[in-house]
Amino acid sequence: MKKIGVLTSGGDCSGMNATIRSAVRTALRMNLTVTGFRKGFAGLIKGDTLPLDSRAVSGIMHRGGTFLQSARCPEFRTPEGQRTALDNLRRLGIEGLVVIGGDGSLNGALALHRHGFPVVGIPASIDNDIAFTDMAIGVDTALNNIIYAVDCIKDTASSHARAFVIEVMGRNSGYLASVSGIATGAECVIVPETECDLVQLCIQLRHRYQEGRDNAIIIVAEGAGEARTIADTIKDAIGFETRVTVLGHYQRGGAPSVFDRLLASRFGKRAVELLLEGMSGVMVGLSCHNLIATPIEEVVKTEKRPHEDMLQLAEMLGI
Amino acid sequence: MKKIGVLTSGGDCSGMNATIRSAVRTALRMNLTVTGFRKGFAGLIKGDTLPLDSRAVSGIMHRGGTFLQSARCPEFRTPEGQRTALDNLRRLGIEGLVVIGGDGSLNGALALHRHGFPVVGIPASIDNDIAFTDMAIGVDTALNNIIYAVDCIKDTASSHARAFVIEVMGRNSGYLASVSGIATGAECVIVPETECDLVQLCIQLRHRYQEGRDNAIIIVAEGAGEARTIADTIKDAIGFETRVTVLGHYQRGGAPSVFDRLLASRFGKRAVELLLEGMSGVMVGLSCHNLIATPIEEVVKTEKRPHEDMLQLAEMLGI
Amino acid sequence: MKKIGVLTSGGDCSGMNATIRSAVRTALRMNLTVTGFRKGFAGLIKGDTLPLDSRAVSGIMHRGGTFLQSARCPEFRTPEGQRTALDNLRRLGIEGLVVIGGDGSLNGALALHRHGFPVVGIPASIDNDIAFTDMAIGVDTALNNIIYAVDCIKDTASSHARAFVIEVMGRNSGYLASVSGIATGAECVIVPETECDLVQLCIQLRHRYQEGRDNAIIIVAEGAGEARTIADTIKDAIGFETRVTVLGHYQRGGAPSVFDRLLASRFGKRAVELLLEGMSGVMVGLSCHNLIATPIEEVVKTEKRPHEDMLQLAEMLGI
Amino acid sequence: MKKIGVLTSGGDCSGMNATIRSAVRTALRMNLTVTGFRKGFAGLIKGDTLPLDSRAVSGIMHRGGTFLQSARCPEFRTPEGQRTALDNLRRLGIEGLVVIGGDGSLNGALALHRHGFPVVGIPASIDNDIAFTDMAIGVDTALNNIIYAVDCIKDTASSHARAFVIEVMGRNSGYLASVSGIATGAECVIVPETECDLVQLCIQLRHRYQEGRDNAIIIVAEGAGEARTIADTIKDAIGFETRVTVLGHYQRGGAPSVFDRLLASRFGKRAVELLLEGMSGVMVGLSCHNLIATPIEEVVKTEKRPHEDMLQLAEMLGI
Repeated sequence: MKKIGVLTSGGDCSGMNATIRSAVRTALRMNLTVTGFRKGFAGLIKGDTLPLDSRAVSGIMHRGGTFLQSARCPEFRTPEGQRTALDNLRRLGIEGLVVIGGDGSLNGALALHRHGFPVVGIPASIDNDIAFTDMAIGVDTALNNIIYAVDCIKDTASSHARAFVIEVMGRNSGYLASVSGIATGAECVIVPETECDLVQLCIQLRHRYQEGRDNAIIIVAEGAGEARTIADTIKDAIGFETRVTVLGHYQRGGAPSVFDRLLASRFGKRAVELLLEGMSGVMVGLSCHNLIATPIEEVVKTEKRPHEDMLQLAEMLGI
Repeated sequence: MKKIGVLTSGGDCSGMNATIRSAVRTALRMNLTVTGFRKGFAGLIKGDTLPLDSRAVSGIMHRGGTFLQSARCPEFRTPEGQRTALDNLRRLGIEGLVVIGGDGSLNGALALHRHGFPVVGIPASIDNDIAFTDMAIGVDTALNNIIYAVDCIKDTASSHARAFVIEVMGRNSGYLASVSGIATGAECVIVPETECDLVQLCIQLRHRYQEGRDNAIIIVAEGAGEARTIADTIKDAIGFETRVTVLGHYQRGGAPSVFDRLLASRFGKRAVELLLEGMSGVMVGLSCHNLIATPIEEVVKTEKRPHEDMLQLAEMLGI
Repeated sequence: MKKIGVLTSGGDCSGMNATIRSAVRTALRMNLTVTGFRKGFAGLIKGDTLPLDSRAVSGIMHRGGTFLQSARCPEFRTPEGQRTALDNLRRLGIEGLVVIGGDGSLNGALALHRHGFPVVGIPASIDNDIAFTDMAIGVDTALNNIIYAVDCIKDTASSHARAFVIEVMGRNSGYLASVSGIATGAECVIVPETECDLVQLCIQLRHRYQEGRDNAIIIVAEGAGEARTIADTIKDAIGFETRVTVLGHYQRGGAPSVFDRLLASRFGKRAVELLLEGMSGVMVGLSCHNLIATPIEEVVKTEKRPHEDMLQLAEMLGI
Repeated sequence: MKKIGVLTSGGDCSGMNATIRSAVRTALRMNLTVTGFRKGFAGLIKGDTLPLDSRAVSGIMHRGGTFLQSARCPEFRTPEGQRTALDNLRRLGIEGLVVIGGDGSLNGALALHRHGFPVVGIPASIDNDIAFTDMAIGVDTALNNIIYAVDCIKDTASSHARAFVIEVMGRNSGYLASVSGIATGAECVIVPETECDLVQLCIQLRHRYQEGRDNAIIIVAEGAGEARTIADTIKDAIGFETRVTVLGHYQRGGAPSVFDRLLASRFGKRAVELLLEGMSGVMVGLSCHNLIATPIEEVVKTEKRPHEDMLQLAEMLGI
């Protein structure tokens, strides 16, 4: 193997740049040449490339987002799109590809693998909804962003005797909500994995309210219900003044945390090693402290188990 | 004068605690006793007090919000409410009051002054919409919170070739929007003080887009239009992918900036000095580097001039 | 068991407050009463206590340090000191104790256990030098503090064509140095676990310098040599302008990271459960995702293995 | 005027990049071409340039340091050095120069002006020791960096009953020390402008100590004495455990604050306007809210007055 490619795809997250950097540095050490593709699979189809040498990845470790950019690419789901991509890869002399991204990106990587092209995936998604890895890149930074904002909002909540309903990201996963709920001492966490009994919640909040605890933080995963509706229900039931905040895209960005930089460094290095070892169609993952490689086919059809211990802990420490 | 009172009222902001601390420390130095009222004017009516000695204000400088809490108090607008408040003040032996808050709070302070009770106001409001002071307490911290979030969102915007419409606070004032727009290099700022030509904006964004600049940040003051509508207009006109983020109450809290701690320290000290000098019905304000005192009557009927130079600068540095 | 005690001892770290909070909340849920001892084992000897109810631990999760305070206590190493402590514990009706701290604190806990008093330890030390737990409380926050400072210093290094030698904490452990080295893309990491070949380092830096890379970050663990000497050696060998920064106590404090808040919440809860299960003389630890309990006797005589994989990764990604 | 140059010189600070950006954007709007010189006056002598178009200054606003780099350049103090620089400027067709930096940089700018070359200076120095401007670029960010670190250290100080002596930057100016002392509630501030009575300080600290306030923060400006000596004196006099922390270069970097971004934007724009208006040998400055231009000759021979009000306020709010 003489030359490999790297791309980032799907929703961006903090740590993608550190992952690219590690893959490139590792490859250079092994005397490989590295080509970056811009805007994910779209760059593969258009042949939109940039050379990645040591300088190109210098000074990017601590920056959020991805300097290779990312984009959705419906065209890549078609046989024609994939053929064009493969033609480009071969024309450019690229013999292996590192794909950094979430669920959809892994499906894209799988398609290339099935066409016989060597590809290794790296899980990067703030939702932490990818199976066969304890953590995906970007999760820890997103969590730290969330608690910074919630700590700020608690200042306001406690100054005003208010309940705040705060919506965090996570699509169908309650991971961000439950962990940030524990980490901020939220009174309640509402996640898609568990039925939320709003009546019971209101009873508890009222009880708490009557005891003189006149503020509350309720964290809602975006897939678990409309924050506005929950806030109105609480207000109507208790007469508690409520406010809604949707944290939004702020959660994705910013300088990556130590954990994400370290994970990115390890994943990027391992992905290149796997390509050199002749592996393809696998995703790098973290299992305890070890790096594992799992067939992407396995990954994309497995649902990540909900984090029951987190939910229990949230409940124990909450109201 | 032997004993004074302190209260915070209206929307909380970062720096209120530092203001209380400075007022208390100054009063103690001058051998005064200090009583705090909880939840603003409501505490005045209910006689909900706590003694403020040196210990009570230790370790609070760097905390957001207000440990004296704040609340709206419609009852205080009635003659009965005001009479009860005055009775409580006299019963407690309090001879002067420091009121920390925004427009509404100053009106409350004015009412007490008209009843002959000595009161000095301190402007605290993230909106920076109070006349006769260059800056109110909380503005600088709110601005720094905003740019931290916008910097994060720019990571995402540039990774994805997207336009972000970001709504910031400010009620009827575009100050937060225009300054944070300059400070983050936003492509456009939409404020209530100026008519926004959305058609012209779309033309500029399209021009920029065609030149290859594929991401944009548009900052909208909350009083200047619906962020969602603006985003949809841009999307329809250019085909640019757009996202909306409403920064929300996160803007209010967090550890105060140096500027706010310094301003709080100066305002708190000056307010107590003014009471001791026999002044009443005035608000402390910053004029250049000097502290001034303006009759609250003057303050509440004067509209703060829009920050034309900021808007011009935003335009010059933007698109 | 009706009543338990909690104390923090040794060097403070971020997450201690969250640990106390979790232990107290868990105990209250199980209908236990909780007494806090001030200043570690000194408070045990002096009977310096405060009652810990739900309110006492409200609003402390996100604060650095420990509100129970910590102190060294040579007296506790004497039989008399220990007897006084045990007398106080019994007199107060306390039937079990949670000790939060590092190596020395665990030795103290062991002494009480050997006297037949039920005690459970929780590892808290930024050095991450305690065996039988993957991570101690405070490590992740310290690391994030470090990289924030190093990112700042890199701005200066790259603006000035300078090499910076940055000393981080860690006593005899190179963990903080090696992980922060990876996470900041440092050119070199010097740790006590490995012999550092300064001549070789200078050769590499000169090579790099001649290639036009005119700045460098060298991270030194405090136990691995004098930063000043290293800087002078580099300067003399290459003629490179060098600067030294000792990060100091700034590393210990600040709001804890998500990881530390979560770990603190889990450790605090588990420690109380272990006491109720009749365990004593054990330390809670993290092994992968699971909580384990190891006899403290075992813990204090075991040296934590150096993090070879981290050192390798640092080398791979560095110069 | 068709073409101007820009350089940064002296100690780097946060906001330099934002200043370059503003100067470049303003110049481009006025149809000027802009050339950047690398490493300050050294780049002028070597002709080490890079073209500065709109793209070159995109995405740099929020980054610390200076991407044009800075360096000391003794050669520029010689007539030969200056002649070479002037030859290069003329050869490159550059008709005016913006110099961003501190005292030394302004002296360099003055030399060019005296040779008849149009030059405008912009004050950038964290020390805030440049006359004829209320604030220099970088001061506000440095202050916010300092208080972040001091807040962290206070966690440790209050957990351990310790006095911390913290040395901050400032060369011969006590501005950073006195303002950060007020903003962090330090018990004492030691600055070069005022004689410090260590005996008196020790008496006050002991008094405080006996009252049960068992921790203290003393902030020392780097030009005001050896932190180690001060700490030892305190320890010997009171028996108080003391620690020393030198904040170091961490203070210089990091993302600029709102204030610095705004000031940078205004200064950069004004400097270009002044060149176009035919002015030379002047420095842009902030006087209240207005921008002023002062002959550099005046600036470099005037000592900035010490900030007496700050020192008084620090004393009032301190011990």
